[in-house]
Amino acid sequence: MKPVKVGICGLGTVGGGTFNVLKRNAEEISRRAGRQIEVVQVASRTINPDCDTSTTEVVDDVFAIVDNPEIEIVVELIGGETLAKEIVLRAIENGKHVVTANKALLAVHGNEIFARARARGVMVGFEAAVAGGIPVIKAIREGLAGNRINWLTGIINGTGNFILSEMREKGRTFEDVLQEAQELGYAEADPTFDVEGIDAAHKLTILASIAFGIPLQFEKAYTEGITQLTTADVNYAEALGYRIKHLGIARRTDLGIELRVHPTLIPEDRLLANVNGVMNAVMVNGDAVGSTLYYGAGAGMEPTASAVIADIIDVMRSMTVLPADQVPALGFQADQLSEHPILAIDECESAYYLRIQAKDHPGVLAQVASIMSVRGINIESIMQKEADEVDGAIPMILLTHRVEEQRINDAILALEALDTVQEPVVRIRVEQLN
Amino acid sequence: MKPVKVGICGLGTVGGGTFNVLKRNAEEISRRAGRQIEVVQVASRTINPDCDTSTTEVVDDVFAIVDNPEIEIVVELIGGETLAKEIVLRAIENGKHVVTANKALLAVHGNEIFARARARGVMVGFEAAVAGGIPVIKAIREGLAGNRINWLTGIINGTGNFILSEMREKGRTFEDVLQEAQELGYAEADPTFDVEGIDAAHKLTILASIAFGIPLQFEKAYTEGITQLTTADVNYAEALGYRIKHLGIARRTDLGIELRVHPTLIPEDRLLANVNGVMNAVMVNGDAVGSTLYYGAGAGMEPTASAVIADIIDVMRSMTVLPADQVPALGFQADQLSEHPILAIDECESAYYLRIQAKDHPGVLAQVASIMSVRGINIESIMQKEADEVDGAIPMILLTHRVEEQRINDAILALEALDTVQEPVVRIRVEQLN
Repeated sequence: MKPVKVGICGLGTVGGGTFNVLKRNAEEISRRAGRQIEVVQVASRTINPDCDTSTTEVVDDVFAIVDNPEIEIVVELIGGETLAKEIVLRAIENGKHVVTANKALLAVHGNEIFARARARGVMVGFEAAVAGGIPVIKAIREGLAGNRINWLTGIINGTGNFILSEMREKGRTFEDVLQEAQELGYAEADPTFDVEGIDAAHKLTILASIAFGIPLQFEKAYTEGITQLTTADVNYAEALGYRIKHLGIARRTDLGIELRVHPTLIPEDRLLANVNGVMNAVMVNGDAVGSTLYYGAGAGMEPTASAVIADIIDVMRSMTVLPADQVPALGFQADQLSEHPILAIDECESAYYLRIQAKDHPGVLAQVASIMSVRGINIESIMQKEADEVDGAIPMILLTHRVEEQRINDAILALEALDTVQEPVVRIRVEQLN
Repeated sequence: MKPVKVGICGLGTVGGGTFNVLKRNAEEISRRAGRQIEVVQVASRTINPDCDTSTTEVVDDVFAIVDNPEIEIVVELIGGETLAKEIVLRAIENGKHVVTANKALLAVHGNEIFARARARGVMVGFEAAVAGGIPVIKAIREGLAGNRINWLTGIINGTGNFILSEMREKGRTFEDVLQEAQELGYAEADPTFDVEGIDAAHKLTILASIAFGIPLQFEKAYTEGITQLTTADVNYAEALGYRIKHLGIARRTDLGIELRVHPTLIPEDRLLANVNGVMNAVMVNGDAVGSTLYYGAGAGMEPTASAVIADIIDVMRSMTVLPADQVPALGFQADQLSEHPILAIDECESAYYLRIQAKDHPGVLAQVASIMSVRGINIESIMQKEADEVDGAIPMILLTHRVEEQRINDAILALEALDTVQEPVVRIRVEQLN
């Protein structure tokens, strides 16, 4: 069979990796796919010293690829939302299939992009957009297609997980580890997307859509970063048998869908609690299969390239397939997406870790207990660390049972109004992941 | 679109689960697949009390399904190699697609079955044959298709893993836990397939073929069970920072492919070391993606049904696809399978745990060290447990570096010939899983 003709826009980390792996594994890939993948053109304004492009046409202008009539699949790996959107939409308009690793683009503009692709009869592959090389999009869209998905949760930002792992293992502060991560190239010079949970929310938005069959609704995701986490809370969590991970969580409830990214205490014996460093993992719970977990490198040159190439092969194989038989972009038929609402964070349900810095006063515990009790919040355990007294205030750590978040927020207001409580109450959500 | 017409042969655990999940999730499945799955006939000689078949035609004779002209996909869930083989081959002959959970059938007769299916232009789905509900066949065949797979390893027999988990956590003996597993229904009355590693070798054979693109060669797999494992070795392993797991391991080397099932020490901080009870997990290492892991329920009514249904949907979607664009049964084009040989276990390379029961004699250590040294075996650590002296013999535990297995076997013969060594040397392989 004739080779499939591909153009790669962007020869940075992922683009360079894709270029190199396609070349190195050309034989293994055609043993599998039954035909070759020919990189006809690469668009890059700078030279990637890791790539030997001596036998490939390199162009400055990405639109030379997008408009090249010979090219069947446009691989968008430049990132960002502006130029990338133009590339993707024009490629679709030109009747080309698209493979992209761009989570921000899809989380924000995916509904429009997928609609255009459908109208034009082309495919958009995006396995590389979530959790790097882990084939989790495929697992949910196809491998678990017989299930009604109940929930999913994941460590889907490697930078954040690296920072939390170092804080726990070495007792280092957030700022200290962030600086190292920037030096190692794990974190960007502007780390906002990673440490504020925006990148994780982009990915969670995509995962939730394919799990539940809902439109992409990034703007409704609740996003809380890890910048406020202290080593004190990391250590208290550990003393209680928990680890703090920055999780994306999507859960289907009768009232609506929870879509939230935040630091979370999880029991230390869970597999997710033991996913360390820059690694990613996603746990998916279906009504038939129960809980499954997918683990691997969530970023990096060749792991992400692995997902891009899997998508190229999938697209190759689907080119001759009737539209009705193709796997829909969001896993569900476009006319079958549900309008089940996304819940506001106040309406979400979770268990909670609360740290209250209270004066060492005999009545405090009774006051705290009463505040919780009148709001119907059940306390699972209380730990008072007298040894950690500072300025006459002792940290009191509460774990609650599951309750709607607005009740906790209400309780926190009441707690902070107490004379004996002088600092803001620290609140971290807790999930058992059963 | 018209519903796809399916017949289910066998209404036992997996058949019953498939029947029920298809019914319960009919709406969610057609939201995804764009059409319905209609179970036209079910073949079963006994009534499954968990299934409401009041609106479905139940027949005694599986061949009524296989020969039913209306049926497009035959789902073989009766197990075994004899009748199941007849069903599958006759269904193929009749031009029907097949979905099966039968690892024994495929490991032993898969080459023939896939060849016949190819000739007849039909598909055979078998996601449920390995690791129950975990979509690991799909992950390797499609999700990692851009990689050259280096190795894979997995806990792919839930019964064995349950027994080992209980032995470690509760200090129980193999026989004791086996009996409980039989009472709980985790182990068969005749547990040979599970505890002797045959079931795991069936699954490993399938995984190795799709990872490396080699024909199914079950007869060349090395299989060692867990029946000889003692709690003493489980405890010594733990003292050294390891856990003993019953792993299937397939590794590509320049000389050939290692294909082996045996108890294995792995470092306790690895995710695989923390997969407990009846759960399964498979770790796959590709040259681009690095190590990835897939975890979930490896057996059971609905988890296995989840995989069967995913296959039905995949087959539905591939019915109109050109044969050249279908995912090949073994992930590689049939004419591209490699003849890279399977290595005999003597030629495989591993690190080793050796327990030598030796008389407490000052010269023993020197004798042992000399035996290892002349065979080029490097010792990583030695632990002597004087407190565990029995009849004047002290357990001496060695961990070696990686070495070809025949050298270890040769060393064991020499060790057992020593006057001071009175019992057979215990040998368990060690893998770091880096």
